[in-house]
Amino acid sequence: MMASSTPSSIEHTMLAASEQLQVPSNITKFKIGLCQLSVTSEKNQNLACARNLIKAAVERGARLVVLPEMWTCPYSNDYFAKFAEDFENEDASPTFFMLSEAACSHGITIVAGSVPESCDGQLYNTSCVFGPDGKLKAKHRKIHLFDIEIPGDITFKESDFFAAGDKPTIVDTDVGRIGIGICHDIRFPELAALYRAKGARIICYPGAFNISTGELLWEVMQRARAADNQLFVATCSPSRDSSGSYAIWGHSTLVGPQSGEIIATSGHEETVVVAEIDYSKIELQRKGLPLDKQKRADIYLS
Amino acid sequence: MMASSTPSSIEHTMLAASEQLQVPSNITKFKIGLCQLSVTSEKNQNLACARNLIKAAVERGARLVVLPEMWTCPYSNDYFAKFAEDFENEDASPTFFMLSEAACSHGITIVAGSVPESCDGQLYNTSCVFGPDGKLKAKHRKIHLFDIEIPGDITFKESDFFAAGDKPTIVDTDVGRIGIGICHDIRFPELAALYRAKGARIICYPGAFNISTGELLWEVMQRARAADNQLFVATCSPSRDSSGSYAIWGHSTLVGPQSGEIIATSGHEETVVVAEIDYSKIELQRKGLPLDKQKRADIYLS
Repeated sequence: MMASSTPSSIEHTMLAASEQLQVPSNITKFKIGLCQLSVTSEKNQNLACARNLIKAAVERGARLVVLPEMWTCPYSNDYFAKFAEDFENEDASPTFFMLSEAACSHGITIVAGSVPESCDGQLYNTSCVFGPDGKLKAKHRKIHLFDIEIPGDITFKESDFFAAGDKPTIVDTDVGRIGIGICHDIRFPELAALYRAKGARIICYPGAFNISTGELLWEVMQRARAADNQLFVATCSPSRDSSGSYAIWGHSTLVGPQSGEIIATSGHEETVVVAEIDYSKIELQRKGLPLDKQKRADIYLS
Repeated sequence: MMASSTPSSIEHTMLAASEQLQVPSNITKFKIGLCQLSVTSEKNQNLACARNLIKAAVERGARLVVLPEMWTCPYSNDYFAKFAEDFENEDASPTFFMLSEAACSHGITIVAGSVPESCDGQLYNTSCVFGPDGKLKAKHRKIHLFDIEIPGDITFKESDFFAAGDKPTIVDTDVGRIGIGICHDIRFPELAALYRAKGARIICYPGAFNISTGELLWEVMQRARAADNQLFVATCSPSRDSSGSYAIWGHSTLVGPQSGEIIATSGHEETVVVAEIDYSKIELQRKGLPLDKQKRADIYLS
């Protein structure tokens, strides 16, 4: 059962999120799977690997599965254009086909990491979300591209390859309302706060931090976003032995709403992390310490 | 040499911060001292202890000294009103006298943690900042009072005792522009972002996290505020053996602008942490990874 989503319907889904999305289903407890796969320079091999890891996650009970940033394609300029797909032409997109089939056959929601998307002559770093009916529910284009130049440490300019997205992405799924960010998007607390304000209970950040920024920031960023917004944060990275232009940190992680407490995490090798999300932890925390009510918006704008 | 500051001049200092404060002095490197003192139920003993620790910090080279939250007074409702002082009547304030004398005689800036302030029939949890001329430069009243009720873990309602402040506090000192927050103020990223936007290069958070929230959140909060805003964050706590209604976390810490990296910290016993602040680290980080320019304010408001 394949979906038929036009670009306009996708945009409508995203634009409408803040206003019209219904309260998510009354599910309160479920398992999430984070597929930390090893990305090769063979797209079909990556698709097959991801399909296997999705199955492994489902067999361990996952109803929501997250894939890493750039999981069909090595993180390298040599590959982006060649591996890009146009999701407006889904019949020509093997990635779309696999994800739709996997979501539908297992009856799960997939936050499909990110892949290079080609659209109107531009490349985007794009995350697709599929529902258990196999339909594409939302599409997030990485908003904050990773441009950094620290002499002697790291130099990288993602905006040389990709155009930036210009919309936040909040999506209602069968396991609740989810906000999506990709990698460097996590560095911006304003995006997480927006998702919190719009009712997200999970933020999924597929990411591919390198070993420099990974060691420094990967854990503290996800913990801070979760603790500040009293919600769950799930990150999913490729494994370190993935192909590409730099060494990847790994450490796909689920953190919780109390203090960004680490509920489950991994090392840097290919693996599937499966862990429980219990929304009652959010309610308990927000009731006991209502940070949103304690905010003083009148002061912050001064 | 004692200062003469009326309440109106203090308010003017604070209100004018965003508009009129001059670029801070061209100092780029200096030492900060964090005085993690043991607070007793004898105010004079606390004043004497703080005075000694300030001297110890100065002898180790500190030009900026930070004291803990509630350092003249046990953190207990039995003491707040009795120990409170009215800074509008400075001649009757032994705390004002000691701080002004210490700042002036050593030629340093003091962010004087916090003490109970009585004003117009209200109590506030208030931090005073003194300059090397002994004058009171700014006064921050804790904005976000700590009201929490997590059954089986912690229940506390600071707003039963104190009124909340209603202004951010940014102050230009001889060691640069500093933003002030007190304890629970650190939980609100919006306040730190405001200070960053107004040009602060350090945020000082005197705090008295308890051992529950301390273990969970003390480190991650200060690291996140520093990393997100690419500035220094200094926290200063009483020691664990302080008098009061709950056990205090301690761990006074200086973190840096790259990743909230821990530059210096302490255990939970009485001590003075002295460490170097080097503003060139801020410039390097902000130049190499200009998070402020990468922000997408147009998106966060959607």
